Amino acid sequence: MFNHREEHVDKDLLLIQANLDDMNPEWVSYIMDKLFECGANDVYVIPIIMKKGRPGIMLNVLIDAAKQDSVEEIIFSETTTLGIRYLHASCHRLAREFKQVSTQWGPMTVKVGYHQGKLVQYAPEFKECEQVAKQFGVPLKLVYDEVRKQFMLEMKNASS
Amino acid sequence: MFNHREEHVDKDLLLIQANLDDMNPEWVSYIMDKLFECGANDVYVIPIIMKKGRPGIMLNVLIDAAKQDSVEEIIFSETTTLGIRYLHASCHRLAREFKQVSTQWGPMTVKVGYHQGKLVQYAPEFKECEQVAKQFGVPLKLVYDEVRKQFMLEMKNASS
Amino acid sequence: MFNHREEHVDKDLLLIQANLDDMNPEWVSYIMDKLFECGANDVYVIPIIMKKGRPGIMLNVLIDAAKQDSVEEIIFSETTTLGIRYLHASCHRLAREFKQVSTQWGPMTVKVGYHQGKLVQYAPEFKECEQVAKQFGVPLKLVYDEVRKQFMLEMKNASS
Amino acid sequence: MFNHREEHVDKDLLLIQANLDDMNPEWVSYIMDKLFECGANDVYVIPIIMKKGRPGIMLNVLIDAAKQDSVEEIIFSETTTLGIRYLHASCHRLAREFKQVSTQWGPMTVKVGYHQGKLVQYAPEFKECEQVAKQFGVPLKLVYDEVRKQFMLEMKNASS
Amino acid sequence: MFNHREEHVDKDLLLIQANLDDMNPEWVSYIMDKLFECGANDVYVIPIIMKKGRPGIMLNVLIDAAKQDSVEEIIFSETTTLGIRYLHASCHRLAREFKQVSTQWGPMTVKVGYHQGKLVQYAPEFKECEQVAKQFGVPLKLVYDEVRKQFMLEMKNASS
Amino acid sequence: MFNHREEHVDKDLLLIQANLDDMNPEWVSYIMDKLFECGANDVYVIPIIMKKGRPGIMLNVLIDAAKQDSVEEIIFSETTTLGIRYLHASCHRLAREFKQVSTQWGPMTVKVGYHQGKLVQYAPEFKECEQVAKQFGVPLKLVYDEVRKQFMLEMKNASS
Repeated sequence: MFNHREEHVDKDLLLIQANLDDMNPEWVSYIMDKLFECGANDVYVIPIIMKKGRPGIMLNVLIDAAKQDSVEEIIFSETTTLGIRYLHASCHRLAREFKQVSTQWGPMTVKVGYHQGKLVQYAPEFKECEQVAKQFGVPLKLVYDEVRKQFMLEMKNASS
Repeated sequence: MFNHREEHVDKDLLLIQANLDDMNPEWVSYIMDKLFECGANDVYVIPIIMKKGRPGIMLNVLIDAAKQDSVEEIIFSETTTLGIRYLHASCHRLAREFKQVSTQWGPMTVKVGYHQGKLVQYAPEFKECEQVAKQFGVPLKLVYDEVRKQFMLEMKNASS
Repeated sequence: MFNHREEHVDKDLLLIQANLDDMNPEWVSYIMDKLFECGANDVYVIPIIMKKGRPGIMLNVLIDAAKQDSVEEIIFSETTTLGIRYLHASCHRLAREFKQVSTQWGPMTVKVGYHQGKLVQYAPEFKECEQVAKQFGVPLKLVYDEVRKQFMLEMKNASS
Repeated sequence: MFNHREEHVDKDLLLIQANLDDMNPEWVSYIMDKLFECGANDVYVIPIIMKKGRPGIMLNVLIDAAKQDSVEEIIFSETTTLGIRYLHASCHRLAREFKQVSTQWGPMTVKVGYHQGKLVQYAPEFKECEQVAKQFGVPLKLVYDEVRKQFMLEMKNASS
Repeated sequence: MFNHREEHVDKDLLLIQANLDDMNPEWVSYIMDKLFECGANDVYVIPIIMKKGRPGIMLNVLIDAAKQDSVEEIIFSETTTLGIRYLHASCHRLAREFKQVSTQWGPMTVKVGYHQGKLVQYAPEFKECEQVAKQFGVPLKLVYDEVRKQFMLEMKNASS
Repeated sequence: MFNHREEHVDKDLLLIQANLDDMNPEWVSYIMDKLFECGANDVYVIPIIMKKGRPGIMLNVLIDAAKQDSVEEIIFSETTTLGIRYLHASCHRLAREFKQVSTQWGPMTVKVGYHQGKLVQYAPEFKECEQVAKQFGVPLKLVYDEVRKQFMLEMKNASS
């Protein structure tokens, strides 16, 4: 069940940015999906104000430098931009593992993050919680709370 | 020089809103201009997040109810929306007049606002300040500051 | 193939708003989906700045007044708000129909809008275009352009 | 300890809005505080794009209609606007009470909300959590989680 | 008519950023214009939330490193900032050329972009479309669509 | 009274960014305060749209590279992120000094900025103005204007 990875710094990243002021925003989720499928570490958009007060959006894609060509290929093919810019970036990622906790809806997964060996993050898995909420007809927020509570109790028991 | 209007409440206004998630943002300034020319009291856009996470914009147009048809005509012709919504609104407007002050660049205009007979606002006219900044090669912010300072001094003298 | 509806004004709508400054944003898409399933006319969120500079979001739900109770039930169950506000709104909706056009990828649908009998909107259906883009490996934007071009040509032929 | 209020709908509210495109944003928190002190139900600002592409902000103040004059007095005195608009609004507020839970840092308060007699919200009090985080040197998020967990456990015990 | 430039990467760019929390937003378009006149590659602003919840804006200017001094001179003269930061950036620009297409309103220009020799972008020129829309009294969006359609038809003919 | 610092460029800065899509926004001001106390040069947040259309926020922290570890410690402890990214940045800071001016409310401070020996910025100190506004019951904007006017008059006298 443990999907362990070491905490590490990845120094060879690029943050690719494209300002879009003449593109149908309806396409954004499709483009974001394509970029994630291509292996992007992260994709997000920022509302901006461009030349002549145009309410544009800035597409941001964080990638391993090795993927620059294929990511740019997608951006030039799927968006309307005539140019992209990129900045060098590094990424510090926590060690992560997936733990399971017992809940009234069965075992559920918590994504855990460690900083210098210390547990600092624990987050219920969205997809699982969403599915439980739908299947059992309970509010999503209660599912989250229950998973978090159970994780805290199990951690406490494990440490005592 | 005085362009006096009484402080008043206009109760017969509509706030027209259209959510746009599939429109080229490049057209926004053109559309805003057209709406102002048609007599809109105010036009502004708000960045929003729509269905499927689309980064849309909400067009807002504040108008006299009497202009509803012509404003909707523009919105349906020039944007991509299939529907608009409107809410009833009232507007409380201050009494306004334009005053002139002496500056090193010649006389300049200040828009003044009165609430219950008391001067509460005074703002240099943007277009004039912009023109002076260009013509005399001074920073726009200094032009604003100078006009405001002169207005304050003249007010003080007038009241003493 | 024609799904005709008359252009009309619906005067009995509510715009429900809830300001959320203490909610996990991860839940937003789930909540928006639930509100659409419940029959909301539109759902969108606006980034806002709340008390103490908190970067909150305002949930907006446009509904028929008859659905107020069930929509509020969802908002109170699924979000963290202690109160909602609502404003009365009207909605002017164009007559709509779905038309099909021939493309190199087979027949595709265009959503058409009429204002006072005049065709003012035509938009390719996102889902179909997305599917064609994936299936045929072409950029989504080209699919949109092709569908729009074909629609224009067929309209022209029909009118001549 | 119980600060009970009935769930209710307040129908006599105004949503006051002022678009600000020529005001020093540094003043915003001061103005928001003043409006809250004056009895505003809620105050928030929305980033907007105004005439000529100006990145303005829209000030929103939700108030009892009886407070309109004093709130407008503040807006006209403290902001730079020459006019405000207002819309009629209603507010549906949950029944609320404050409960205390036992934590390792002493008793702490939870704000609870009831919809039709059913507990739907529970939120740790920000100020108390902030103080505990500072005093005991623990991350704020852990304080929140602990308070929520304790509340859930106490609720469970009470109902069994 | 061809204004050809090779696709290229410009590695010697700076992205200059200034956070503005005490500046009149009315000045923004003037400042953006000045920066473009000075030779900036791109200028845009991003709404941000600063210290004490202030709704500020971040000015972004992308420039050739050689222009750093003159651009900073403008920023320090025209905005209220006490400091700017800059990041090194590279820009990948497509080959571009301007093509003309025949329309019912006369010849109109399309800006075309090539990625590795392949046509990936084509965009009607905003200013021309705006002028045609005004002169002939047609919706701007129809002008765009017509120019795009004509471009597609001419491309198809040229390739067959 | 002079707190002089030379205009300078600091080349050893990091811009640390964390995208937060599952964090209670209520914690943001607390986290920003902690980061400033830790010695951050600047802290600000940007509303963004993340995977699946989530309305997240991007935390930005500008720091001396020497403080990277302690700043990351705070971010990992207090936010919910599993990773941060950082970019190298330089900062050009104006020479600054604090000057006092005489006003009807007593001496007040103006923060002044010099670019290449030339005075380009002057800003009233927010905290002092806020205190005067409260103590004397005058609008904050008038306090700002008075301080600015007095500064301009004193500068003029000093130079003549």
